[in-house]
Amino acid sequence: MTDLARCVAEAYDIALPHRGEGKVADYIPALAGVDPQHFGFALALPDGTVHTAGDADISFSIQSVSKVFTLALALRRVGSALWDSVGREPSGSAFNSIVQLESEAGIPRNPLINAGAIATTDRLIDGRSGDATIAEILDFIRARACDHAVDVDLNVAASESETGARNRSLTHFMDAFGTLRHPVETVLGVYFRQCAIAMSCRQLARAGLFLAMEGRDPLGGEQLIDAHRARRINAIMMLCGHYDNSGEFAFRVGLPGKSGVGGGILCIAPGHGSIAVWSPGLNDAGTSLVGAIALEHFAYAAGWSVFD
Amino acid sequence: MTDLARCVAEAYDIALPHRGEGKVADYIPALAGVDPQHFGFALALPDGTVHTAGDADISFSIQSVSKVFTLALALRRVGSALWDSVGREPSGSAFNSIVQLESEAGIPRNPLINAGAIATTDRLIDGRSGDATIAEILDFIRARACDHAVDVDLNVAASESETGARNRSLTHFMDAFGTLRHPVETVLGVYFRQCAIAMSCRQLARAGLFLAMEGRDPLGGEQLIDAHRARRINAIMMLCGHYDNSGEFAFRVGLPGKSGVGGGILCIAPGHGSIAVWSPGLNDAGTSLVGAIALEHFAYAAGWSVFD
Amino acid sequence: MTDLARCVAEAYDIALPHRGEGKVADYIPALAGVDPQHFGFALALPDGTVHTAGDADISFSIQSVSKVFTLALALRRVGSALWDSVGREPSGSAFNSIVQLESEAGIPRNPLINAGAIATTDRLIDGRSGDATIAEILDFIRARACDHAVDVDLNVAASESETGARNRSLTHFMDAFGTLRHPVETVLGVYFRQCAIAMSCRQLARAGLFLAMEGRDPLGGEQLIDAHRARRINAIMMLCGHYDNSGEFAFRVGLPGKSGVGGGILCIAPGHGSIAVWSPGLNDAGTSLVGAIALEHFAYAAGWSVFD
Amino acid sequence: MTDLARCVAEAYDIALPHRGEGKVADYIPALAGVDPQHFGFALALPDGTVHTAGDADISFSIQSVSKVFTLALALRRVGSALWDSVGREPSGSAFNSIVQLESEAGIPRNPLINAGAIATTDRLIDGRSGDATIAEILDFIRARACDHAVDVDLNVAASESETGARNRSLTHFMDAFGTLRHPVETVLGVYFRQCAIAMSCRQLARAGLFLAMEGRDPLGGEQLIDAHRARRINAIMMLCGHYDNSGEFAFRVGLPGKSGVGGGILCIAPGHGSIAVWSPGLNDAGTSLVGAIALEHFAYAAGWSVFD
Repeated sequence: MTDLARCVAEAYDIALPHRGEGKVADYIPALAGVDPQHFGFALALPDGTVHTAGDADISFSIQSVSKVFTLALALRRVGSALWDSVGREPSGSAFNSIVQLESEAGIPRNPLINAGAIATTDRLIDGRSGDATIAEILDFIRARACDHAVDVDLNVAASESETGARNRSLTHFMDAFGTLRHPVETVLGVYFRQCAIAMSCRQLARAGLFLAMEGRDPLGGEQLIDAHRARRINAIMMLCGHYDNSGEFAFRVGLPGKSGVGGGILCIAPGHGSIAVWSPGLNDAGTSLVGAIALEHFAYAAGWSVFD
Repeated sequence: MTDLARCVAEAYDIALPHRGEGKVADYIPALAGVDPQHFGFALALPDGTVHTAGDADISFSIQSVSKVFTLALALRRVGSALWDSVGREPSGSAFNSIVQLESEAGIPRNPLINAGAIATTDRLIDGRSGDATIAEILDFIRARACDHAVDVDLNVAASESETGARNRSLTHFMDAFGTLRHPVETVLGVYFRQCAIAMSCRQLARAGLFLAMEGRDPLGGEQLIDAHRARRINAIMMLCGHYDNSGEFAFRVGLPGKSGVGGGILCIAPGHGSIAVWSPGLNDAGTSLVGAIALEHFAYAAGWSVFD
Repeated sequence: MTDLARCVAEAYDIALPHRGEGKVADYIPALAGVDPQHFGFALALPDGTVHTAGDADISFSIQSVSKVFTLALALRRVGSALWDSVGREPSGSAFNSIVQLESEAGIPRNPLINAGAIATTDRLIDGRSGDATIAEILDFIRARACDHAVDVDLNVAASESETGARNRSLTHFMDAFGTLRHPVETVLGVYFRQCAIAMSCRQLARAGLFLAMEGRDPLGGEQLIDAHRARRINAIMMLCGHYDNSGEFAFRVGLPGKSGVGGGILCIAPGHGSIAVWSPGLNDAGTSLVGAIALEHFAYAAGWSVFD
Repeated sequence: MTDLARCVAEAYDIALPHRGEGKVADYIPALAGVDPQHFGFALALPDGTVHTAGDADISFSIQSVSKVFTLALALRRVGSALWDSVGREPSGSAFNSIVQLESEAGIPRNPLINAGAIATTDRLIDGRSGDATIAEILDFIRARACDHAVDVDLNVAASESETGARNRSLTHFMDAFGTLRHPVETVLGVYFRQCAIAMSCRQLARAGLFLAMEGRDPLGGEQLIDAHRARRINAIMMLCGHYDNSGEFAFRVGLPGKSGVGGGILCIAPGHGSIAVWSPGLNDAGTSLVGAIALEHFAYAAGWSVFD
């Protein structure tokens, strides 16, 4: 057993007793029904190795973790012009606040809050259909995950749309400022589907690896995005990846990360590897409680926190 | 010439042509009169080496960089109880905004915005006199800087107090919420003096080194603060060190840092060393324009950005 | 010529030279195309007399003036339960601000800002269809105006819907808080149509007369709404009828009033009569510039300001 | 017994059973110690008659009711230039909110919220000493009240100053925006003393009478302020006199009024008279609970509500 494999196993074991703590997201039935006892962990390394523990091969709804991939794709497609539509600074407020949008004339603070992710998706569409856009997102993630079974859970997507009043409000609000380039329902159609992508920890860890490798696919060798764009994404994840809990996560884990209300977290260790954890119980800030504990211990054991 | 010495020299040379760009802080005469052509750079390494370039031995007003030292001292003195008085999350608003204070009942967002630094100073006082507190701050910085000449510029301190209406308002505001433990003028008396500490780049780089070494003084070997507190400070600097420009600084430099309106920036490279730069011209966000360029190139050349 | 007839004529003459000043609302073509030289004035008295001047018989889009009628009808239909959905206090912010809605959990400040009028319309629907609701509004207004020709300008209504991103955002926002009782598009369908009702000054002045007469139709004698509800509506008009310009209007005119961006203003003189003016040029606060001047002079001449 | 005398007696009797309800202001000991059973009522008429009921001759701390008098004096002294320092629109937020001040660059919304009253006092000082200013305020009120015994309760004033952190913060905040013309402590020295003026209902009702008479002293005949300034003050009282409860007060009482946390309310019936009530128990919005009930019944009985 390698040192890193041992770190994975230890982090899993230390976090395991906390399974079932926290609160499972319940705003849509498809999420509310997930067993809170699930807990998976996967570490993907640049050489192709993946170390796993627990439910690392069970699919879950990646939700806001998807924002990282659409950000990468939008930067690849429109480049720095993306920053006309969305900022790059922490928001200092809840993930779905509309106040900042008003005082800053429809420009969301960063691409990892809901409004900013919707604005990013709007730019990614770039004149295409919603279906073509979601196809590009899926193709990209499948290729990274080395698994063409990754797909949208249409049941979850439909529920997102039905309960998406706040996101609809945010999107119409940006539309009112004239900062949106496509019809509200086209943008939301892509956004709700990207949030409903289902993946396992193994797939997700693999899919994030290019961000740890300066934008390159370490296996195929392809430069997927420019190195400085990967750095940008990592910086944004570090500062904004967990809404109003980003400071706490940065201190405890010390790595760029993005959490989703489905209980998944993607964590990037630049130069080292990519980690995905999943456990549905959330802390008060909407981050997987067990997942954050596991990541904290793993980063410490591996010596990967960037702040020590 | 070592590689790092060369990185320092190169970073200095690349940023040099930008001298005089930006806007010198002019809210007090003592700052407004500083020559915008000044530019100093110092890198302090754990073995005691200091590599410098330019005006690295000329003293400047460290201003908000002082917040890092009072944060370290307050954490050492009152421990986690500090977080009863101040948060640890980015603020998403200007350095001196009062809006967040109102909605969060007098608890500032983090120790690196003005209100948070004032709250931190209030806790550091801990029942002592203002003079005893500023003496502790000076003693600590002098010992770290290996130079007992470091002192408060009383002329600057007096000007700060005279023009400090906004800081006075913030402090009375916290007092109104009952979150302050000492009289407003006692707290401000320490705060205005800590901001008026004058240091050179060489002194400042040395003084910050313990934050790069898990809280230990690398020369004397003394554990000045617990390792996890040093990590906490680094995380807070990364996320909140440059007000509304923290995201941009994190992307460009990739290291925890804290800027001051005097044109100084302290940057921590955990495990590697501590860097101080100084040039008075500020960008729109109040960070040294030349200093940020130099740091960006240095971090890139040294390969120290934590996001690649 | 009676004294009041002379007051009408004088007020018209004094305001006339200001025709063409101000800015015609241009967010929809149907409004932008209105001739800014129009200016009409009508005073309806309890005995059935209507004194008019200028373009008092030309129809215009009453826009937000319609909020007064839906408020009266909603109070009649659901009574005090209306206050579960909307407040009764001035908002201190622009007519379409969303910030207050967030801090007060989806309850708009009062029924005369857009969000509050939408919430009021939602309650007025009361389980019926949108068509049935707009039919009730039209029937009520036609009966009050003694003119069955009053109708919705469907061209304007369609434009309102097309350009209604902000109102859509506000409505979805309330929906996100669970404070809405009908589907967003049903509510907006009624709201956009009520705003698009076209009336002349003569019709509008007659239609408002019941508010000056403690809720009674002075001609037919029917008690349309309870006296204390008429008082409530008058108080809300006085305090909130002109968004961020309500204080100025109260001082200058001294009567409860409600303005619309079509350039119409309805003004109630309790116990005396009801006044409608129309001129499309708006002041900075969105109130008819010429209309406000005319009302100020009329109220002064008639001695009807409640503040002297 | 005249009709109005009967209205006073009835209003007193109807409200009497509510004595002791509400919450006595307890932020300073001098207010907290007042017997909640006190209840006084006085109606002053233009002919010099004063009808009273209950504790109409016991002095109480007029607190924010004083803002009406300083507003009148400031308008008389600096005229429309006052509006450079303070607005004339409802605030839509609590009496001591600082948020609006930040977004509107240090200009308070109106002269009846704390910040606006402090700004008004600043203008009233007009280069004089604090003592000269408070002397003018007292002279004016004594002359109006026909009683030279009216004075500042220095005990209350000292307590106000000691507990005045929020007001200090607001004042330094305005100072930071450069909108203040005198030193913070000079302005607050006047403000805290004006709030600590002690008067009886009889004195207060008399003192307010000029506002009901277009700015004239009905007994002496002196034009104290221009008629349009009296109208302005009445309009501001109607729209802003009770902070976040102004809409409710306008509906229930239908007259311009100003409440203070000492339990006093001054109410102006333009053309008719001036009413002062006092009972220390406050409703949630900080207005005298018993006082508001009495005023509602009196205004109804007298037929003086401007909204019917």
